[in-house]
Amino acid sequence: MNPMKDRKIGLVGLGRMGGNMARCLHEKGYHVSAVLDVNESVAAELADELGATAYTKLSELTADADVILTVVTDDRAMDAIFFGDDNLLAGADGCVFINCATLTPAVHQRVEAAAIKVGAQCLEACMASSIPQARNGELFLMVGGEESVFHANQPLLDDLSKALHFVGPAGKASEVKALVNMVMNINTAALAEGLGIGDALGIDLKMLCDIFSQTGANSRVLETDAEDMILRDHDCYFSAAHAAKDSGIALALAAEQGVDTPLAQATWNQFTRLVTLGKGELDKSGVAELTFQGRT
Amino acid sequence: MNPMKDRKIGLVGLGRMGGNMARCLHEKGYHVSAVLDVNESVAAELADELGATAYTKLSELTADADVILTVVTDDRAMDAIFFGDDNLLAGADGCVFINCATLTPAVHQRVEAAAIKVGAQCLEACMASSIPQARNGELFLMVGGEESVFHANQPLLDDLSKALHFVGPAGKASEVKALVNMVMNINTAALAEGLGIGDALGIDLKMLCDIFSQTGANSRVLETDAEDMILRDHDCYFSAAHAAKDSGIALALAAEQGVDTPLAQATWNQFTRLVTLGKGELDKSGVAELTFQGRT
Repeated sequence: MNPMKDRKIGLVGLGRMGGNMARCLHEKGYHVSAVLDVNESVAAELADELGATAYTKLSELTADADVILTVVTDDRAMDAIFFGDDNLLAGADGCVFINCATLTPAVHQRVEAAAIKVGAQCLEACMASSIPQARNGELFLMVGGEESVFHANQPLLDDLSKALHFVGPAGKASEVKALVNMVMNINTAALAEGLGIGDALGIDLKMLCDIFSQTGANSRVLETDAEDMILRDHDCYFSAAHAAKDSGIALALAAEQGVDTPLAQATWNQFTRLVTLGKGELDKSGVAELTFQGRT
Repeated sequence: MNPMKDRKIGLVGLGRMGGNMARCLHEKGYHVSAVLDVNESVAAELADELGATAYTKLSELTADADVILTVVTDDRAMDAIFFGDDNLLAGADGCVFINCATLTPAVHQRVEAAAIKVGAQCLEACMASSIPQARNGELFLMVGGEESVFHANQPLLDDLSKALHFVGPAGKASEVKALVNMVMNINTAALAEGLGIGDALGIDLKMLCDIFSQTGANSRVLETDAEDMILRDHDCYFSAAHAAKDSGIALALAAEQGVDTPLAQATWNQFTRLVTLGKGELDKSGVAELTFQGRT
């Protein structure tokens, strides 16, 4: 038996990831009791779908949940839900927070400290996956926090994931996640340069991808993004804006440590340029718009 | 029957690749008749090993070979063997040249034109593999030139390779090869940044590599270079100097086409910096020496 199925689950941040994680948990027999999103109609619709209650006040959601998953966009939003006038920590004694956004590691540490202070517990659970994996409980999860809290909440984390790594104290999972995305973003921008030059030279890009896949140029992003780059199919799984944000987090970590990272910098510049061009909501494959002739 | 086994094979450039290709062909029953290297004692030893003749004059090697494989280091060396005072084209009527160096594509076009003028034939056969593959006839070969010449020489090319791609007219194989290595070099420098930051943050690097391998950060160079970066095992399979050279060829192609390639540029800068530091003969994994604290 999974004792967590007797607990009330709250969800804050019902974007494509958070909303689908709520659906996944509901389908697996969890009691999703409370949902909240800045977009109130999204919350109302999901509440209706899952038999939950949609809240507009964070403290009221806390009162109606034992385990609260947060899936917000960035550091600023995270600060707002934990440290704003109305916040999740009010009356949170005994609650567990599982924070899934990719944030600056220090933010996770600050939130954990504040949660402990009010008698709550806290995990960071960084996701390296996309929407279908959220929906199907097949996330890749990297968890930071106290190891005992991790083990106590493992049944629910297992149900959300197909790969679950306990990484270390609060902040460590965000560090690892930032490095994962930093390397992924560089490899993506690299592929966009290779295909962009190949296109300009009149090389058959299908053949080029086939050769890349059999050589030292092979990478996961070659599998996931090459065809989208060629076809300009930039429907969003992981946005250019998120890529810029995560590369920025990694750059800040590198700067703190005094590590020289010219490729991460060049990649941040590219994704930031996409955002500046109003293309931040393209998928990260949209970075090829900057390297194929005639696209910008 | 393979009619190429009746032909006399010459090899010019007996470094770790060329020497092992000669051994491979000899072992497979080809008649390696003539060898030449700027290092005359290397040529003499290999000639002794294979029962071939070591030449010091290029025109004399041509006179003793029907099919001549060249495996030189760079554009300058290629110019020297084909257009120097003593050169391979003298008396080359009826010969086939198979040129395996990664060069500026225009050099292959110039050599092909000059070969045709003297009644010879020419292929570029760019290799994306390393020393053991050369020795075992398991190269990844990308061939450019006239398609009929490719087909006529396919038995020998097949015996050298486990993957053989005809890419297009002379110069196209070098273009593809330059793009392969450009992307590979970027991915390598990216990995060095990720591991360097992770090391500075005190993250367990074995765990970090394990997570990279399961996420969007995965790449072929993660498999081949990560452990070497961590252990500082930079025994050379593909040198930092070669990485700089090949990224430079790709950058020149990009510049000719007006394609913006900031990551390729940043990567060229890194490998060039290694060369400047006197570390050009480290393996390309040596780029991590620039991103791990306390190594430079």
